[in-house]
Amino acid sequence: MKLNEKGLLIVISGPSGVGKGTIRKALFKRAGHNLDFSISMTTRSPREGEIDGQDYYFVTKEKFEAELARGNLLEHAKFVNNYYGTPKDKVMEKLKEGKEVVLEIEVQGALQVKAKMQDAVFIFIAPPSWEALESRLVNRDTETSDIIIERLNKAKNEIMFASSYDYIVINDEVENAVDKIIAIIRAEHAKCKRALEGYYRLMEE
Amino acid sequence: MKLNEKGLLIVISGPSGVGKGTIRKALFKRAGHNLDFSISMTTRSPREGEIDGQDYYFVTKEKFEAELARGNLLEHAKFVNNYYGTPKDKVMEKLKEGKEVVLEIEVQGALQVKAKMQDAVFIFIAPPSWEALESRLVNRDTETSDIIIERLNKAKNEIMFASSYDYIVINDEVENAVDKIIAIIRAEHAKCKRALEGYYRLMEE
Repeated sequence: MKLNEKGLLIVISGPSGVGKGTIRKALFKRAGHNLDFSISMTTRSPREGEIDGQDYYFVTKEKFEAELARGNLLEHAKFVNNYYGTPKDKVMEKLKEGKEVVLEIEVQGALQVKAKMQDAVFIFIAPPSWEALESRLVNRDTETSDIIIERLNKAKNEIMFASSYDYIVINDEVENAVDKIIAIIRAEHAKCKRALEGYYRLMEE
Repeated sequence: MKLNEKGLLIVISGPSGVGKGTIRKALFKRAGHNLDFSISMTTRSPREGEIDGQDYYFVTKEKFEAELARGNLLEHAKFVNNYYGTPKDKVMEKLKEGKEVVLEIEVQGALQVKAKMQDAVFIFIAPPSWEALESRLVNRDTETSDIIIERLNKAKNEIMFASSYDYIVINDEVENAVDKIIAIIRAEHAKCKRALEGYYRLMEE
């Protein structure tokens, strides 16, 4: 019996290199869930094969800044002169349809979302050890050792922000982390603050 | 990886006839969990075959009142001139050992526990409909129709107290309700307020 018909906004976040993307992909592969991606808005040009409204919402700088001004970005950042952000109206639409919207973002972005969507579920993905995080960063052979040291230092700062999240899930094994996230989603739907109104409505019928 | 080494106090509660006992039994049958009962203290005499410290802690009225006076009862009630209650020290011991202590109690008792153990997890077991609750009460052939009407009226009052609980789980199907409770236990252990201290300790090692 489903009491909470609105979907959840699930923010999966954590330091760079922790394996957020791997967990998110494994989570979507599990059956029986009504998960959906949040699609970002960006001012960068589409690469070959990228489709507007699917990979990104591709917009002009003027349009992005207008959306920003009217408060329609749950979070945003600027990289190499291009904006990237999460449009609030698109997320709200999906939540209303009952979809669980998964937002896989950096810690900075998650803290921005937290200020705007108190009702979202914030999950901090944490490395099982500093060595594990370092070896993951080293194995991405695109990074130089300077960048790796910088990322590790950033991660040490970022785990202090875990206290702003609702849950902490250690990425010791991907499937184990996914099990925990699924348990969190189930539990959150059973929370009185989300389900009680629906229950009282059901009992009045 | 276990970050929260302390067990949880899990309060399973709801109206009379909702099926709390059935759910609790089915929950304990599931493998891979570290659940334990809370044993009540009572002033009534042991029935044949009942063992002190296993079925109940059997105590004198004076002993019970002394425990009450020193604040060692998480909840208590008096039925037919006998006291029944949950001794706090015994519960705390088990939690320290890492056991999840399950307390299956009436709504009145749960509200007493809530005032004393803010850290406990409160789960309200709710009937899927008034008809379902009524037919469960009717099937307990020990009750007269007067008692059934009285219990239904009490239940209508009690579901208003669900808002004091953390979670609401509808007993539509026992195994389904048990799945939800297990998800709640997993999620609660991953809560930052319970797990973060352990995580920081781990990362400092």
